Amino acid sequence: MQNGLEPIDALQRLHDLVADDMAAVNREIVARMSSEVPLIPKLAGHIVAAGGKRLRPLLTLAASRMCGYEGRNHIELAACVEFIHTATLLHDDVVDESKMRRGGDSANALFGNDASVLVGDFLFSRSFQLMVQIGSLEVLKILSSASATIAEGEVLQLSTTNNPATPVDEYYEVIRGKTAALFAAAARVGPVLAGRSNSDAEAFDSYGMNLGLAFQIVDDVLDYDADQKSLGKSVGDDFKEGKATLPVLLAFARGDEESRKFWRRTIQEEKQEPGDLDQAIAYLKASNSLEDSAKAARHFAEDAKEALSSVSGDLEFSKTLCDVADFCVERAF
Amino acid sequence: MQNGLEPIDALQRLHDLVADDMAAVNREIVARMSSEVPLIPKLAGHIVAAGGKRLRPLLTLAASRMCGYEGRNHIELAACVEFIHTATLLHDDVVDESKMRRGGDSANALFGNDASVLVGDFLFSRSFQLMVQIGSLEVLKILSSASATIAEGEVLQLSTTNNPATPVDEYYEVIRGKTAALFAAAARVGPVLAGRSNSDAEAFDSYGMNLGLAFQIVDDVLDYDADQKSLGKSVGDDFKEGKATLPVLLAFARGDEESRKFWRRTIQEEKQEPGDLDQAIAYLKASNSLEDSAKAARHFAEDAKEALSSVSGDLEFSKTLCDVADFCVERAF
Repeated sequence: MQNGLEPIDALQRLHDLVADDMAAVNREIVARMSSEVPLIPKLAGHIVAAGGKRLRPLLTLAASRMCGYEGRNHIELAACVEFIHTATLLHDDVVDESKMRRGGDSANALFGNDASVLVGDFLFSRSFQLMVQIGSLEVLKILSSASATIAEGEVLQLSTTNNPATPVDEYYEVIRGKTAALFAAAARVGPVLAGRSNSDAEAFDSYGMNLGLAFQIVDDVLDYDADQKSLGKSVGDDFKEGKATLPVLLAFARGDEESRKFWRRTIQEEKQEPGDLDQAIAYLKASNSLEDSAKAARHFAEDAKEALSSVSGDLEFSKTLCDVADFCVERAF
Repeated sequence: MQNGLEPIDALQRLHDLVADDMAAVNREIVARMSSEVPLIPKLAGHIVAAGGKRLRPLLTLAASRMCGYEGRNHIELAACVEFIHTATLLHDDVVDESKMRRGGDSANALFGNDASVLVGDFLFSRSFQLMVQIGSLEVLKILSSASATIAEGEVLQLSTTNNPATPVDEYYEVIRGKTAALFAAAARVGPVLAGRSNSDAEAFDSYGMNLGLAFQIVDDVLDYDADQKSLGKSVGDDFKEGKATLPVLLAFARGDEESRKFWRRTIQEEKQEPGDLDQAIAYLKASNSLEDSAKAARHFAEDAKEALSSVSGDLEFSKTLCDVADFCVERAF
């Protein structure tokens, strides 16, 4: 979408609004990953370069600017947010790798579990060092709490994976922790930096939290949507790993004994045969589980926009942040 | 030594001096490990109960008291220090486990890699949450820097393990990070809490750093000292894991071609046969490597005591902290 052949989406428009800031964030990330231990910049650079959408630092930059912040601390803070995200990615790799090993797959991580764990720890520590330099206890409170919530969400996820009978509330608790908490914190620190009121901070927190929930649900829906292959995400990964995502939970809850037997075999026992993914998609469609999951995401996106409506600030940012919420869920319909 | 049958050692005397505070730290640790995710208090409790000597929180308590601190924040801070230590232990387990797996051993951790990584992350985050509550940016700076240094030391260790030709300076760099940095930080926060001068903070930092270096070297020496089995540490663990500790580095550097061949086979390739540990000890003794390592530890212990000599404060604490430095290295002679 950046090649001009398609209309520019809302996410790209938000990136364009903070392009200079984001370039500064990228420079900051590289500078702060330096260490005399060569493996650290090497591994961290590998992850950061692979990079993805930089959604979380984008929220920090946009929230700061929407609130009229004119200092430079939002750059460092956006880098901190990305460091925390990168640390959790590195640690997720260890968790997922060990999971794949259990399933008999011999996936070889590029640098090994050891380095992933320890470099993740380094990035996490470095992130807090940077926050201390910024000197705001409020910011430190927000991001240390978010970090604890992320870890709790990930631990909780360990007990829900492979269980298609996981209560939907527990699924929400997991994604609130593993995904939405950092979105919320990334957005919240913007108004805090700008010296806005607590109610503005709460509003951005709610925007980020709801956007994060919507984003994760859409991600989970797209894993079963073969038409989305062009987006670069491979279809069926969650299924292969036996993840009990929202569409599966809904289909299981609504299913007859035959379909439940199918989900128990494929998700719970991870015993999968050729054709199972197609069968899974058929069950999901027959039970409206993909559609209803997308509707749940839409609901959260509406809440995100609603939260932001109470905040005064730069209108272009405000509108684009709302458009981003719409854009995130439109992908799922 | 707590049964009255042997003279009370310096470490026990220090524990006795802060017995009430340490009881409060233990209560704080349990209270702050609470989480709605049951696995977190379960796993964290398992590690904390296994517990060990609580050396690091002991340093925080003793340093605070020696400097006349009369508040209660040293209790919470000692708990933070223990949380960081526990998080690194959990992550070390993952690193060590993956290492053993590479060697063909199928060690089964009690809770799995996944939980160890994530609960470690939780404890680390919780530790920073607690520090934010205490509200001292100086304390946050000290412990976030120490955490980054720990991670760097552990990453560096990955590249030295199994290499008997590791330069001695690099060994010191590793143990400065993985062990001594947290000792230094744990001691330094005491005078900082008490509002002491920066030079007092530096003095305690130096005491902790040198004590930590001495402590780790002694630990590495005792791994080859069969007479020490009564202390509860099994002999030969480091050797079995191919760790390039100071005694091995000295023996390798001083050895003839035959002994170097032995170290390459046993440490580098981890190909070990019955009788190898005895042979290793024979080489270590013939080259005075155990004795000279112990002397290096003695040197650091003297530096620790020297650092403390410039600080005014409660004399009983001051004397006992010096005695602790002596006690730590006496074990190695």
